[in-house]
Parts: sequence; structure tokens; C-alpha cells
Amino acid sequence: MTEFIPPATRWFELPSPFPMKRGGELRGGRLAYESWGRLSPERDNAVLVLTGLSPSAHAASHQDDPEPGWWEPMIGPGKPIDTDRWFVVCINSLGSCRGSSGPASINPETGQPWRLGFPELSVEDGARAALALVRGLGIDQLDTVVGCSMGGMTAIAYMLHGGRARRMLNVCGAAHALPFSIAVRSLQREAIRLDPLWNGGDYSDSVYPESGMRIARKLGVLTYRSAIEWHGRFGRVRLDSELREDDPFGHEFQVESYLEGHARRFIRQFDPNCYLYLSRSMDWFDTAEYAPGGGEGEQAVLRGLARIRLQQALVIGVETDILFPIEQQAQIAEGLRRGGTEVHFASLPSPQGHDAFLVDYPRFCPLIADFMGG
Amino acid sequence: MTEFIPPATRWFELPSPFPMKRGGELRGGRLAYESWGRLSPERDNAVLVLTGLSPSAHAASHQDDPEPGWWEPMIGPGKPIDTDRWFVVCINSLGSCRGSSGPASINPETGQPWRLGFPELSVEDGARAALALVRGLGIDQLDTVVGCSMGGMTAIAYMLHGGRARRMLNVCGAAHALPFSIAVRSLQREAIRLDPLWNGGDYSDSVYPESGMRIARKLGVLTYRSAIEWHGRFGRVRLDSELREDDPFGHEFQVESYLEGHARRFIRQFDPNCYLYLSRSMDWFDTAEYAPGGGEGEQAVLRGLARIRLQQALVIGVETDILFPIEQQAQIAEGLRRGGTEVHFASLPSPQGHDAFLVDYPRFCPLIADFMGG
Repeated sequence: MTEFIPPATRWFELPSPFPMKRGGELRGGRLAYESWGRLSPERDNAVLVLTGLSPSAHAASHQDDPEPGWWEPMIGPGKPIDTDRWFVVCINSLGSCRGSSGPASINPETGQPWRLGFPELSVEDGARAALALVRGLGIDQLDTVVGCSMGGMTAIAYMLHGGRARRMLNVCGAAHALPFSIAVRSLQREAIRLDPLWNGGDYSDSVYPESGMRIARKLGVLTYRSAIEWHGRFGRVRLDSELREDDPFGHEFQVESYLEGHARRFIRQFDPNCYLYLSRSMDWFDTAEYAPGGGEGEQAVLRGLARIRLQQALVIGVETDILFPIEQQAQIAEGLRRGGTEVHFASLPSPQGHDAFLVDYPRFCPLIADFMGG
Repeated sequence: MTEFIPPATRWFELPSPFPMKRGGELRGGRLAYESWGRLSPERDNAVLVLTGLSPSAHAASHQDDPEPGWWEPMIGPGKPIDTDRWFVVCINSLGSCRGSSGPASINPETGQPWRLGFPELSVEDGARAALALVRGLGIDQLDTVVGCSMGGMTAIAYMLHGGRARRMLNVCGAAHALPFSIAVRSLQREAIRLDPLWNGGDYSDSVYPESGMRIARKLGVLTYRSAIEWHGRFGRVRLDSELREDDPFGHEFQVESYLEGHARRFIRQFDPNCYLYLSRSMDWFDTAEYAPGGGEGEQAVLRGLARIRLQQALVIGVETDILFPIEQQAQIAEGLRRGGTEVHFASLPSPQGHDAFLVDYPRFCPLIADFMGG
């Protein structure tokens, strides 16, 4: 049950007890974060970055940690999110295993890891924890709240739970989960839970649900990219014969070893219980809950989004994304627009699917630089 | 290791030894099939139906088996494939577990199930076995070779291995496997093989790789349908509270219980080893191998297809199919056209994805009736 905490991490102690949306409360909770740049004397240049399911707070290299971050080309001096101008804060999500409290962290009341004793987690809990941190840093209003993927959900929840921001940058996000994504995540969780070594969440480094995590990660990678990209990248190319297993069901095609490589890098780097918690939190998220007058479905989602007060928003989606399909970003844009926000919606033809925001920098960087510079 | 053999099944003994494409040979092999209608005195009204991965030869109800078949609305008296006119033969694929020889059948030389001792299986082996059966029935030339999904691959292989037909009906097929589909199938096989109860293929009815089959089937169902259909069908609807498990990771959304229902119906009805063999055979299939002058990739596939001699073909694809995407049926149509076949290509807007040919009868029946009646 290793946590993987980058060296530039700082911690913020959450108010304790911290009530959780689905019941129960968290005692002695904390958030891990990193920051870049300097908060202006007017405290009006803060940019909050909310992540997808698995990244740490290490979004970019740092004076205390020269390792490239998960959004390295996007954040730094002179980059689209320019740390010479902005005070940038990135949070490791509540429930994750990169320093924030979650199933893999120690419950201070018992001295043991929380495991499945961690309270049920919602996207809104992560958003409220982020808001506590922002306020704890003495910031009343963000310049920009930025959310990618799951973080795009968290950014919406942040604004619906008292957060204030002048602008929103919502990247490959969604205002609620749809059944295909729920089904994918459900299957990932099932693969982990069916692994006998998961053992009801009570595993160790030596007895660890590797098989379940392997399936879960490969299924993730299947849905993070697009068929069209793989066709171009891998075609039907075989592995060199010396790399092939002597087994008709062993890895023979490059695409199979690509999945395997991704899985190997992830399996031991992300805690299985944290994966379960964060994954399920996305299924539950539904902006329709915030619609004035109640209701369900698309119209309620739009009415919920229209409650958000911002000056401007940039909403970016990718046409080949099957996990957070482009219709979901169009919906965010429409809902924010109905609330009076000046919205720019960008539908990008990147072939890389949901992962495009992590790799297609030639398309994403100019858009985000324009927005952040405006 | 139960085989599931419909009551109207007949058997055809394959020539023995039957050489296999990837090496080795099959001794004492046989094919299970069913037939409907009567072969004309001129033996010119035969229609051969080649199936997807899991169906039996029971494509339609039969005088010896009133149970509806897997393509019931398509085959029968007065139906699009009219058994008053055509002599229709449907084969259980070589390697399957519905009566044909495969990993679940008994190796007559040992009296034990073949399991992983069954020779490596290619789509071409299935096609050559089908050709032997057709010739064994005294048929020199089919009126129509029909293939759905994997059967669409087999139909192409049939024509490239000496089979003769006046027409082809290729439904949601492909001329080679692309990396997304290979990746999906690879992950399904891995889920089965990672299940400790798979036990290197040596399982029994009481010690059976249920977990692996459950994951494999759910992943299949994920890719057989489309996100847009599920959005319309399930939205975010919850199960009634009495059907929910008391577990935050248990089934809560309708889409989760839909997957579970599909999995339960399949897990014990299809042999895991057969699944592995048939699944892998699809990855290997590549019409480019038949291109005059050799080569790889799209152009070689087209040149391979252009070797096929037919008078007419109807090639049907579905725009929401992510497993056998519409570009693959367009490719089949183009390649056959280059070979001089009069081709009608139908790109259907069915929302049901790859499975549409099994459910969207209002779109498929008139098209196929027109073609078969012409």
C-alpha cells in the first residue's frame, strides 16, 4: 500500500471533521498540492488545476522537483498557463494516493490505512476539499478554475459548492456520467474486485491484485485512445519474433505489447482501492442534482450548469473521445452560456481520443495560451 | 466442459487428416450444421450461412427444433432468406463448442477433450472445412455465401480457398483485423487466462473460470453495442433499491445490471477454450496475404479481395459499429468491386452498433430480402 508522493508536495489540513456528501465524515484529512509562481498582492492571479483520475499534484517541473509533470508543456514560465503571471495550484484529488487522504493513506485515528473504511467519495467532496484549500491559501476568487477529465467534473462541482472564479477552462470534462462510461468503469472495478488478491481491499505489496489492475488499466487505455489513432500507429504490425511469447495466445501484435507496457507502468503505481473510489465517484456525479426545481436528464443538467457564475469559459473536447464524448463538452458549453458566461467551445479533431489533452499539444497549447492570455 | 448442441444438428465428417493453416492437422474432425429447405435438382439454390464467434448452427427454427434460432426473422418460409426457395445451410464454426470439432470436443485419438491440444485455428481452416461440407453435400457452386461478423471474414476466406458462389452477402464483416479489435479481443483472452480457475485450459464444470468469462463477455457486450444506444436506453437510471447490493461498488445503475445479465447468460453457455481459439483466429485473419504480388496494408487487402469472383455482392455495415467499423465494410465493397463484382454497399445508421444485424430487423430485413429476391 505504497503512496507515491512527489518531492515538491505541500500539504493542507482539511477542516476536521470534514463532512462527506454520501454520509460520514473524514477526520484528520489532508490534501497534497503543488504550486508554481507567486500569488499577487491583490490575490487575484490564482489558477487552480483539478486533475483526472490518476495524476499527482505534480503537473509541471518545480524548483523542488525538476521531474517533468503530467502537463509539463502547458504550465511554466512562458507556457500557455504562464507561471510568470499566474499563481498555479494543482491538487492531488481527495481519495487519491499521491499524498492526499484516501483509501491508501493512514487513518490517524487507527494508525492503519483507511482501505475500504474510507468514507464513500463523491466528486463534490473533492471539490469542497479544493475550495477549503483555496480559501486556506487566502484566495477568495480564482482567476481560473481548470479541470481536465474527472477534473472537469470537479471544476463544475467547485462552482456549484460556493467556489468563485472569474473563468473556467474545462478540458474533456463532463457534467454527468453516461452509461457507456459507467459500464467501462464498472467493468474495471469488477476486474479488480474479482482478483482474489484484492481480498476485500486488504492487500499488501507482496500480495497484490496485479491481475485485476492489469485488466482495469488495459481497459482504460482502450478507451483513452481512439481506434483511428491505433490504426495509424500500429496497423497489424507484429512484435519482433524474439519478443514474442511461445504461445498462440501470447503477445504477438504491437498493439498488445503497447497495452501491456501501459499496464506494467501503472499497476504498482496506483493504489487499487483508490482507483475504485475515484472511479465510482465519477459514475455518481450528476449536475442535474443542482437544477433549480429538480428534474433529471439533459435539461436538468443544463439548468444546473446555468447556475454557475463566470465571466468567461473555454470548453474543449475531442471528436474522437469515446469516454467523455464531444456531446458532453458541448453540453457544458451550452449550460454555462445559458448562465450568462461568455463561452468559447472548441471541438478538436485530434485522433488521440480522451488522452489528446495529454499529448496533442500542438492543438491544445495555442487554444489555452490564447484563453489564459486574454 | 459441456458442449451445447441443438437438437436439429447434423454432422459432416471432415477429411482426415485435415491439414491446418498454422501447422498440424486435425484427425477425426467434424462439422455440425443445420439445413432448411430443399436442394434443387440442379443443385443451384444453396445458401451457406457462416456465423459470428458464438452462435450455433441453429440460425432458425426447424422441423426438428422449434426453438427460435439466432437469425430467426431472417431465415424461413417467406422470410428474407426464403427457405421455400433456397436450400440454406448454417455451420457451427470449426473450433466452436456447438457440435463442431474444437477445444471442447473429444479428441477421438485420446477419448479426452482436446482443450489446448487442439491445433491452432485460423479463419481459413473454418472456411476450408465449410467448403468440404458444401462439396460433401454435392454442391459445386453456392448461390450465395452469407457471413456475419467473424463469418464475414470466413466468407472471404471461403472464396479465396476455392469456394465458388454466384453472390456474397457480407454483414458487418472485415477483410482483416485492426488494432482496436485485436486489443479488445486480446484483453478478453487475457481476462480468461488470468483467472486461476482457467488452469491452463484444464477446467471442469465444477472448477470453471467464471470470473474470466464474466469480464470477457462484459467487455464484448461493451463493444457490440454503441454508446448512443445505451444513452437512450439506460441514461442514468438506477436499479430499484431492492435489487441493489449493499456495497458502494455493487451494481447500482441499470447499465451495470444489463451487462451482468448478458454475462450470466453466456458464461456457462460457451466454452472458454473455444472462445480463446475463435477470438485469436480473427486477429490473425488478413486478406492482404492473398494479394497477388504480396505486400501489406490497405492496398494489399484490396488486391486480395479483387481476386474473388462473384456476380453480385451486398455488403452491409453499421455506422455505430466500433468493433468492425464501417470503413471495413466499405473496404470489402471496394475490393470486390475491383474484382469485377457488382456490389451494393449499405451503410446503415442503426444505433445498435455491431449487434445491429441481430436486432435491427426493420433495417436489415428489407435490404436482404431485396438482395436475395433479385
